[in-house]
Amino acid sequence: MAEPLNIALAGLGTVGAGVIRLVEANAELIARRAGRPIRIAAVSARDRTKTRGVDISGYAWVDDMVILGEREDVDVVVELVGGSDGPALALARTTFEAGKSLVTANKAMIAHHGLELATAAEAAGVALKFEAAVAGGIPVIKGLSEGAAANAIERVYGILNGTCNYILSTMEDTGRDFDDVLADAQRLGYAEADPTFDIEGIDAAHKLSILAAIAFGSRLRFDAVDTMGISRLKAADIEQARALGYVIRLIGMAEVDRTQGGDRLFQRVRPHLVPLDHPLAHVDGATNAVVAEGNFMGRLLFQGAGAGDGPTASAVVADLIDIARGEKGATFSMPAAELEMMEPAPTGHRLGRSYVRFTVPDRPGVLADITAAMRDANVSIESLIQKGDPDQDGEVILAMVTHEGPESAVSQALRILEGSESLTAQPLVMQILGD
Amino acid sequence: MAEPLNIALAGLGTVGAGVIRLVEANAELIARRAGRPIRIAAVSARDRTKTRGVDISGYAWVDDMVILGEREDVDVVVELVGGSDGPALALARTTFEAGKSLVTANKAMIAHHGLELATAAEAAGVALKFEAAVAGGIPVIKGLSEGAAANAIERVYGILNGTCNYILSTMEDTGRDFDDVLADAQRLGYAEADPTFDIEGIDAAHKLSILAAIAFGSRLRFDAVDTMGISRLKAADIEQARALGYVIRLIGMAEVDRTQGGDRLFQRVRPHLVPLDHPLAHVDGATNAVVAEGNFMGRLLFQGAGAGDGPTASAVVADLIDIARGEKGATFSMPAAELEMMEPAPTGHRLGRSYVRFTVPDRPGVLADITAAMRDANVSIESLIQKGDPDQDGEVILAMVTHEGPESAVSQALRILEGSESLTAQPLVMQILGD
Repeated sequence: MAEPLNIALAGLGTVGAGVIRLVEANAELIARRAGRPIRIAAVSARDRTKTRGVDISGYAWVDDMVILGEREDVDVVVELVGGSDGPALALARTTFEAGKSLVTANKAMIAHHGLELATAAEAAGVALKFEAAVAGGIPVIKGLSEGAAANAIERVYGILNGTCNYILSTMEDTGRDFDDVLADAQRLGYAEADPTFDIEGIDAAHKLSILAAIAFGSRLRFDAVDTMGISRLKAADIEQARALGYVIRLIGMAEVDRTQGGDRLFQRVRPHLVPLDHPLAHVDGATNAVVAEGNFMGRLLFQGAGAGDGPTASAVVADLIDIARGEKGATFSMPAAELEMMEPAPTGHRLGRSYVRFTVPDRPGVLADITAAMRDANVSIESLIQKGDPDQDGEVILAMVTHEGPESAVSQALRILEGSESLTAQPLVMQILGD
Repeated sequence: MAEPLNIALAGLGTVGAGVIRLVEANAELIARRAGRPIRIAAVSARDRTKTRGVDISGYAWVDDMVILGEREDVDVVVELVGGSDGPALALARTTFEAGKSLVTANKAMIAHHGLELATAAEAAGVALKFEAAVAGGIPVIKGLSEGAAANAIERVYGILNGTCNYILSTMEDTGRDFDDVLADAQRLGYAEADPTFDIEGIDAAHKLSILAAIAFGSRLRFDAVDTMGISRLKAADIEQARALGYVIRLIGMAEVDRTQGGDRLFQRVRPHLVPLDHPLAHVDGATNAVVAEGNFMGRLLFQGAGAGDGPTASAVVADLIDIARGEKGATFSMPAAELEMMEPAPTGHRLGRSYVRFTVPDRPGVLADITAAMRDANVSIESLIQKGDPDQDGEVILAMVTHEGPESAVSQALRILEGSESLTAQPLVMQILGD
């Protein structure tokens, strides 16, 4: 048996503990598959004494995680600290300076600093791998950057945040409202105490920007992801969508737009109406799923556990096995210097069908105002449902679905209605996922 | 830019032509991703003059494909001839003898000779890769052998034959009978003139045996796949299944059975009843899907185009890009010498629910005979549907679903009924896919 691959773990939260459990439980199998054992040489975390459910007494403890990569007995640093900057970023930089490889689950750091870090890793001739950063246990980074490598990818989209998907499918199953289900999710550990990154779509946007860079060979543009979360959704939206034959899912979607001159990058995270016959409509609970469309392979779907210590550890150790096998991979499926700078695509000309939810006073004339605005903006209405009874504030929900048309027309109609007394709250627009 | 990876193509059918089209269409992208161009150096096929829809005049023609690997200007031979033995096998052997890598889409050859060929490739220090052999454009070989490499895989199963899935979902949509739909599928090119390999489950068994070897680190045991195809299915089965809340799919399934002492290999290809809330129930047409369950990652699903020139070419070229990147991979996720010899698992003790279709004469007493046999064999009946009217032969279809119990009990009941005048044809048994 060859020399072991020596790793150092920075961060011993649930994922870090999961990696220790996995490396110990599957040690023999990993050695057979990797051709050499994976050995934990050192660990580091903020608090040495915290109870973690794993015994770390057999591993060297290092107080200052930033210098883990400088240890002679370490080949690869596994960064599970989190956060786009701070200790995680410092650790990544010192690791490459020390000529060691880095495996990370840190989507925020890759989304913000991926190009810099890939460049540093390449200059040092080492690996930067982050399978665990996107869609947990699903090998979608590998699937895109290697499995689909022969294809020009035309579109990549999917369900990238398990917390949102859990909340949406629970709202669907129970008819309960967002705040109520979120509170439950927090109690059950499916949502964090501060859920902003998840429910506002930021976590999904981090992941989408990483997938887009790999799929299109473009530089990371997290700053250019058009992002909206699920916090404004009501039980009534779910109900109306269901009545129309849809479920609501938070979809991250990226495309290269070639219609406006040059290659422009379209990236959007938003709740969408998903038709019941679409595979993503059946992705429930904390599951993640990613669809990639290539010019030769057609449509490919990856689905699995998007979070949790076991699945995330599985992805981290898959990266380590690649490195143990001597297969470093190209960080974003090609050298960093090859990645193209793409400007964000405008969105107004995009064709599609939209769902618009209006909150209106319960009085005559409202419908006439809204339909007049639609007519004036050239929006063609496919269906319109007014929910039966007004709520305690005398408000009624009006759910509208448009025929296919440019997104800018819907925006124009809403501008016409701005300030109108026929609306008691800002309308909510969602796209309907096409084929 | 580094030196090109020079390839030779053996076999210029639809997939071979697809590979040429892909390598030409995506040449620039492939070079960026692989770090070097992929260049077609030579081609060979049975008939030089056949029209193929691609121009091969720019590539060296070789009459004797078996010596392609011996050419100095060839780094990798791509075998797209097909057949478990014959020229394909001869070509594979001479290629490794010449110290060159082989990429193949040939599931039959790998299922029958995979261990010999992997051993030869390892001895020569070259790659043997066959992503295109299983599930067409879906990178499931890579997904299992690399993406899921950190896991003990407990079970792998899926829809592995697009022809059968097309026939079954068309029977479902149209209510037509098997022979009728098969004839149509042949006219449309979804089934071959001799459809035996597809409809009798042999093609799926080839693929399953390859997946099992990778998932479990076991030697290939195609000979031990318990195989039954779909040719005995009737429209009535589809209809009864639907009434009970199921669709019928040809499922290949493999597990390691540890209940009988030692690790034993369970491999089965059979039509199954799939509950409508299972992701595989929504896999329609010629689509393939594979589920793998690992001890850390949980359940992972890969879905996509299982056949066709584009998707298959995508998988072939993904293998070539891996080789161009210097990443040969371990043929079955570990060196051939590490693969364990596993004996086939017995099946009688397996617990599950079964569907049994009886064809019976339309007279009193039949039901009493059948239910008595079930009672005597300790089979507990969950439901029993007798289809309304007898057909032109005076026969009636009786569809039964059992409660969970050992498969041997159902076999025992059918043995009791053997030769009984209450049956006018051999009963058909299908398993119900569990969670």
